[in-house]
This record gives sequence, C-alpha cells and structure tokens, in this order.
Amino acid sequence: MTSIEAARIGKTGRHRRLSTVAGIAIVMIAFGAPFAGAEALKPVQLPPPQTDGGKPLMQALKQRSTSRDFATDPLPLQTLSNLLWAAWGINRPGEGRRTAPSARNWQEIDLLLVDAKGVWRYEPAANTLVPLVTGDLRPLAGMQEFVKDAPVTLLLVGDPTRMKGSEAATREAYAWSDAAFISQNIYLFCASEGLATGVRAMVDRPALAKALGLGADKIIAFAQSVGFPRR
Amino acid sequence: MTSIEAARIGKTGRHRRLSTVAGIAIVMIAFGAPFAGAEALKPVQLPPPQTDGGKPLMQALKQRSTSRDFATDPLPLQTLSNLLWAAWGINRPGEGRRTAPSARNWQEIDLLLVDAKGVWRYEPAANTLVPLVTGDLRPLAGMQEFVKDAPVTLLLVGDPTRMKGSEAATREAYAWSDAAFISQNIYLFCASEGLATGVRAMVDRPALAKALGLGADKIIAFAQSVGFPRR
Repeated sequence: MTSIEAARIGKTGRHRRLSTVAGIAIVMIAFGAPFAGAEALKPVQLPPPQTDGGKPLMQALKQRSTSRDFATDPLPLQTLSNLLWAAWGINRPGEGRRTAPSARNWQEIDLLLVDAKGVWRYEPAANTLVPLVTGDLRPLAGMQEFVKDAPVTLLLVGDPTRMKGSEAATREAYAWSDAAFISQNIYLFCASEGLATGVRAMVDRPALAKALGLGADKIIAFAQSVGFPRR
Repeated sequence: MTSIEAARIGKTGRHRRLSTVAGIAIVMIAFGAPFAGAEALKPVQLPPPQTDGGKPLMQALKQRSTSRDFATDPLPLQTLSNLLWAAWGINRPGEGRRTAPSARNWQEIDLLLVDAKGVWRYEPAANTLVPLVTGDLRPLAGMQEFVKDAPVTLLLVGDPTRMKGSEAATREAYAWSDAAFISQNIYLFCASEGLATGVRAMVDRPALAKALGLGADKIIAFAQSVGFPRR
C-alpha cells in the first residue's frame, strides 16, 4: 500500500505516518535512490570529535587485528567523527598538525569515505564530509565479497602535487607509508571501540580512479573498511 | 704517552692507572674498539612487557608529535620492553600475530635497536635483544645532529626474502608502509609515556647497510629515535 492509497482510505495517526514513510521508500526504490539523490548530497557537518576517551593504549594494541566480518549496520555519526579525527585529524590546531606524521609535513593524503550514499572527502579543519560522487560505490572499493557489507570503506589517496621536491622513484613509497601511519590510527581506534576493520592494498585502482574522477597522477594507496563486527 | 712508557718510567698509583686506561684506549682505537668489544655483547632478556596500561587512546593521539630534542639519559629496560612490544610485538601468541599489520602477513620487517653499546635485533617471541654489531653506531643512524643524543634509534628494515610473491615495482612501497604501521605504534607509545620520538626516511642507507653487515637486498625503510624529551 502506498501513502496515496493510505490517504485515500482515510487511515490516520500512527498508521498513516508509517504508510507515508513506506510510500516514500517505495518511490525511492522505484526511481533509483542513488541517482535520484545525486544532486541532493550536501556537505555533512560532523559533530565535534570526542578526543579524550578510548581504551588504555596498550589494551588497544593488544586488541588490534584485521577482520573481514562486518555487520551491515551503519556507523553513528559521532563514531564517524571520532574515527576520522583519530585517523587523520588536526591534533594541534595552532600549527595545523595531525594525528599521523607525513614526510616533510606534506600532508598529501586525502581521506575519502565510501558509504551507501556516495563518496565523501574528509575536511579536518571544518570537520565536514564533502560529497564527491553520489551512489553506492562500495563494491568498487575492494575485490572481496565482504567489502560491500561494511558500512564504510576509507580510501587513502595521495596527491603528488603536495609532495614538493619528491622524486619519482620513491614517490609511491612515501605516499603509501604516509597512508600507513593513518591506517594504523584507524586500526587502533577500531580496537579501542570494538569495531571491525581491515586494510588492503589490493584494489582496482584504474576503476576506482575513473569512478571517483581522480586525476591519473593521484596515488590510491589503501582501502580500509570499518564497521561493527558481524554477530 | 702509552701505558708501556708509563710503566717504564716507574709512575705509580693514580697516575699509572690513568696512564694504563689511556693506553688501553689507544690500543682499542688502534685496533678498532667495535671489533675489540664484539665478543662481549650477549643477548639481553627483556622483562615481560606491561600490556595493560597507557593513556586513553584518544589522549595519546592528541599528544602525538615529532620531536628532535632528546635528553641523553638511557631508557629503563622495562620501558624498552614495553616500547618494542607496542611497536611490533606479538599480541595474539597462539597465531603469532602482531600489534601492526603487514601485507599478506609477511611480517617482513625487522626492528633493529641502535644504542651506545651496539646494534641489536628485537626477537618478539623470546622477548630478547640479540646483538648484531658492537660499538656506538648512533651517528650513522641519521644525518642530523640530534640523532646521536637520543639513547635509542630504531631501524625498520624489510627482508624481501619473506615477501613471497611480491613484485619488484611495489616491493619498496610495501616494505615502507609495513614499517610505517609499526612506526605509528612507536609514536603513540611515546605520546602515551611522555617520550620524545621522530621518524625519518633520510638516512645514509649504503653506509648503514655496510656497518650492519646487511645484504644489499635488505630494505632500510625508516630510522626512528626515541628518548626522554630534553629539559
């Protein structure tokens, strides 16, 4: 029953509201929610990260592990904000310094977030997610079946234009290792919060670069999925 | 004046002892102190690491920074044991899994410790430091003046023979990034313990490889100094 039918037969109160929600959901499925929403994605203001808590460091290290078993449940927005700050946030606002180091302080890594709605770029100073692409690109973010279950996959992408004075022979190694410092923060945050995560270098880089509209010079280092562990 | 001359002209007491010490020093310099002391270094059994404490993770992330100001004081052995376990210890003994990930679980990174006495290899299962070279090689572990002040410099060295199926084009990037996961653990341990640390990729790799007797195939990824902050 659509909301129009529900309205016609005069349902009221809680039933009508439920029917209306169901009706909107049906319309979205019928017309393709990802495409229909393409122009609708707006920057998301994240809640301020909670930067005081977490398990004692040594316990987080004891819990650190790689998982491939994700529940499909989405991550709460507060958890996402905390995760992104832990990964690659600004921990010394006066100097714009970050939670992970980068060679010569290039800060060349961008953290892109792939979820069911689209692909977003984390902007640490504004604490926002800026939409880049609309649609569920999670199946592109890894070659293994589990990847599309995880509610979020983070892509760690290096921008060589920020790597002043770098040499071609070691540019990839620098970008990959600068991404790995960040990846380890993600691992430890997930260990501390009881979340599942796994990093991988095996991704279809040409397909991802095309879907994301990334220039050919961009260095897609790693993809790292995050979610609740599968029960 | 050598100790032989001192003995011949009949000096006694404090002067003779000082002359003797000076003579031994001259002999050691003449014949190469590192070689002379080489047989004296024995494996060091580290105390069991304390794997429960530390600051809450988010606070450690807030404190993470790179420092180049080290006090010369040595690190207590317990701190060293905790540091090495945090960096690249075994956190799941049944499976031999570690506190940091590595591509395809190669575990190809060796953690070498350079201190005033020599160079040691961390053996995580036995929790020992195995001596490799005798003598103070700290000045070789970095090109900057501060490096020789720090009581300890860790070298993160990749062994390609463990990287089964790796390709030449990406081997260095894999080894560097696997080293970077470990390096971030070192950063966070130091942040948690109020220690100073700084990682660097700019090291004289040929000189280090020669001094350490490393094969030409070994990948010296990073050097990371650790110590108390200079007061």
